Amino acid sequence: FKKHQILLLPGDGIGPEVTVPVRELVSEINRSESGSQGKFQIELLEGLIGGAATDATGKPLPKETLEMADSCDAVLLAAVGGPKYDLLPYELRPERALLGIREHLGAFANLRPARLFPELVDASTLKPEVISDLDLMVVRELTGGIYFGKPRGIVEENGIRRGINTETYTEPEIERVARVAFDLARKRSHRVTSVDKANVLESSVLWREVVIRVHKDYPDVTLDHMYVDNAAMQLVRKPKQFDVIVTGNLFGDILSDEASQLTGSIGMLASASIGGKTGLYEPIHGSAPDIAGKNIANPMAMILSLALLLRYSLNREDLAQRIERSVSSVLAQGFRTADIAQVKGQVLGTREMGEKIIREY
Amino acid sequence: FKKHQILLLPGDGIGPEVTVPVRELVSEINRSESGSQGKFQIELLEGLIGGAATDATGKPLPKETLEMADSCDAVLLAAVGGPKYDLLPYELRPERALLGIREHLGAFANLRPARLFPELVDASTLKPEVISDLDLMVVRELTGGIYFGKPRGIVEENGIRRGINTETYTEPEIERVARVAFDLARKRSHRVTSVDKANVLESSVLWREVVIRVHKDYPDVTLDHMYVDNAAMQLVRKPKQFDVIVTGNLFGDILSDEASQLTGSIGMLASASIGGKTGLYEPIHGSAPDIAGKNIANPMAMILSLALLLRYSLNREDLAQRIERSVSSVLAQGFRTADIAQVKGQVLGTREMGEKIIREY
Ligand SMILES: CC(C)[C@H](C(=O)O)[C@@H](O)C(=O)O
Ligand SMILES: CC(C)[C@H](C(=O)O)[C@@H](O)C(=O)O
Repeated sequence: FKKHQILLLPGDGIGPEVTVPVRELVSEINRSESGSQGKFQIELLEGLIGGAATDATGKPLPKETLEMADSCDAVLLAAVGGPKYDLLPYELRPERALLGIREHLGAFANLRPARLFPELVDASTLKPEVISDLDLMVVRELTGGIYFGKPRGIVEENGIRRGINTETYTEPEIERVARVAFDLARKRSHRVTSVDKANVLESSVLWREVVIRVHKDYPDVTLDHMYVDNAAMQLVRKPKQFDVIVTGNLFGDILSDEASQLTGSIGMLASASIGGKTGLYEPIHGSAPDIAGKNIANPMAMILSLALLLRYSLNREDLAQRIERSVSSVLAQGFRTADIAQVKGQVLGTREMGEKIIREY
Repeated sequence: FKKHQILLLPGDGIGPEVTVPVRELVSEINRSESGSQGKFQIELLEGLIGGAATDATGKPLPKETLEMADSCDAVLLAAVGGPKYDLLPYELRPERALLGIREHLGAFANLRPARLFPELVDASTLKPEVISDLDLMVVRELTGGIYFGKPRGIVEENGIRRGINTETYTEPEIERVARVAFDLARKRSHRVTSVDKANVLESSVLWREVVIRVHKDYPDVTLDHMYVDNAAMQLVRKPKQFDVIVTGNLFGDILSDEASQLTGSIGMLASASIGGKTGLYEPIHGSAPDIAGKNIANPMAMILSLALLLRYSLNREDLAQRIERSVSSVLAQGFRTADIAQVKGQVLGTREMGEKIIREY
C-alpha cells in the first residue's frame, strides 16, 4: 500500500501552534487505521513558507517547498504574515508566497464555507434568527482575475504616476469554476448564486454569459445572478437565502470574508482550494501575530482544514466526518477557546483544545 | 437676488413617487424663506434620465438633461432602472446614464452616510448594541477606477473570448478624494480609514502611498489602513470602529452598500456626489420596480437627499438640519413607511409620509 503524503506548511504567527494538534491527530488517524483493511496511512512532510521561509532562506516561497508540494498528495497551510515582514519589498512579502503557491498548484477553485456551529450562535453580531443554521459556501475563483491580470504596476506619464491592474477572465477559466460550483450545489441544496458586476464591467458580462451557458448542463440546479454590491447587502440582510455563491477572485475575497464573519467565529472555518493536481487546505483566519506563542489560538479551523483535505484530496468522507463530529462534540460539551468563549470557565488553550478533540476522535 | 436652480430627475420605478414630496417641500421652503432677508428661493427644473428618458427620446441620458444640469446649481436624482430596460443593449441601459452623469458633472467624491436612526434600531439584522448610534461615512471615489479604466471590453484570441477591465488611479485622482475625506473627518470624529488591497494590487499600493502623503496636511486627523476583505468583515464585526472610510470606486460601491444595510433601513439613507462644478444628490436605494406605483415607497431618503443638497451645494446647513429634524420628529411620533415598520398600525403611504414631514418642517 501507498502512504498518502501531506505537505504541512506551518508558516508564521499562530501557524506553528495550530499545527501541533494536526500532527497529533494524524498520528491518531494512522493508529486507528493501521488495523483496517486498506491500511490507509498518512505521512506528514514539512516545508517552509512566508516570513519563516524568508528568515531561513531569503525567499517567502522557496523552490524546495514547491517541489515538495508537487510530490505530495495535498498541502495543508496554516497561515503566513506578520508585522516584521510588512516592510519588506513587495516581492518578498509573505502574501506573494500565498498567491505563488495557489498559482503553482493551479488550485483555481477556493471553497470557503460559512457554517454556523449551533453552540456558537451567540458569538455572532447578528441576531440569532438571522443566522441560526447558516450554511453557505463561497466558491471563489482563485488563480485569475485582477489578482494575476496584466498589465499591472505603477507607471509614470508626464511626471504623474498611475497605478494599473487588469481584471481579466477567459471563457475556460469561468467555465471550470462554474462547474465546480454546480457540482457542489448538487451535493447541497441545488442552488447557485453567481455574483458579478455585469452592469458596469465587461469582464462580468462574459462571466455571466458563460455561467448561464454552463448551467444548461445542470437543469436540476437553480441559478440566479446578483451584483456584488447587492450581494454584500444581502449577506447582512438575509444570509440564509444563499446556498452556493460562485464569483471571481476579488469579489470572492471580499464576500467570503464578510460571510465568514457573519458566524462570529472565524477561528472555526476551514477552506479548500481545489481543481489543480494537488489540493491546498487552509484555515480562513490569518496568522494573528498579536496572539502568537501564547497558547490561546483556536486550532479548530486548522483541524477542520485537515478534514476537508481528507474529504476532497484523499477521498475519505468518513474520516472527514469523524473529525467534524469530534469538533462538534467538544463544543457541545461546552469547551471553548478564548476567541469563541462566552463564559470564562470553559476556556481551553490551543494545546488543550487539540487534545480534547483528539480524545473524541 | 438669484433663484437657486435645482434639476430634478425622477427617473424610473418609485422615482416619480418619491419626487412628489420633494416638490411640495421645496414650495414650503420657498414660502417660509420668502419673508426672510436673503430672499432665498429655489426653482425646480425637471429632466429625463434612465428608462424614462429612453422611452421618450431613445437615449437614457439625453443631451438636454446634461445641458440643464450644467446650468443648474445642483442635481437631485431619484433612481433609474427596471426589468423593462434590463434587456436593452449595454449602451442603452439605465446604468449608463447614472455613470454618464457622474462623469459629466465630475462628481468625484461620493459621500454615503450609514447612520442609524435611534427609533429604527430594531429594523437591523444586527444586535442593537453592535449598531446603536452607528454613524459612519463612506467617501467613495466616483469617476475613476475600474468603472472607467481602459482598455475594456470582450476580445477574442484564437477562438477564446476574454473579458477585460482596467483598474487605474493617478496620483491627482487619489489626492483630491483623500482631501475630501480628511476635510470631512475634521467636521466629525477626526478619524479616516483608507481601504485598499495593497497586498495584491499595485493601484492600491499607489493609493495608500498618496493617502499617507496627503495625511501630512491633516495632523489632527487619525489615519489607518485596512484591506478591503478585512473591512468587509470589520463592518459586520464592529461597525462603530469607523468614522470616515475613504476608498476607490469599486470597493466603495460594495462597502457602502454593506454599511447602509447594517442600519436595516436603506430607505432612509441619502448620498451626495460632490467635487465637480455641480453636486449630484441621490437616495442610496434603487428604483424598486416591484413596489412602484403603489404609494408604499419610503420618500425619506429622497427628502434627506434634498437636505444634503442644501448643506453641500446651497450652503444652507440650517435648512438641512431643519429637514433632518422634521424626519426625526415624524419617526419619534411613531410614523413609518412599510419598509421600516415593526408594528402595523403606524404605517403611512408615500404621499402621507411626505405630508407629515412637511407639516413638521
Ligand atoms: C493575504 C491575501 C493575499 C489573501 C487574498 O487576498 O487572497 C487573503 O486575503 C485570502 O483571502 O486568502
Ligand atoms: C447601478 C450601478 C451602476 C451603481 C454603481 O455601481 O455605481 C450603483 O450600484 C450605485 O452604487 O450607485
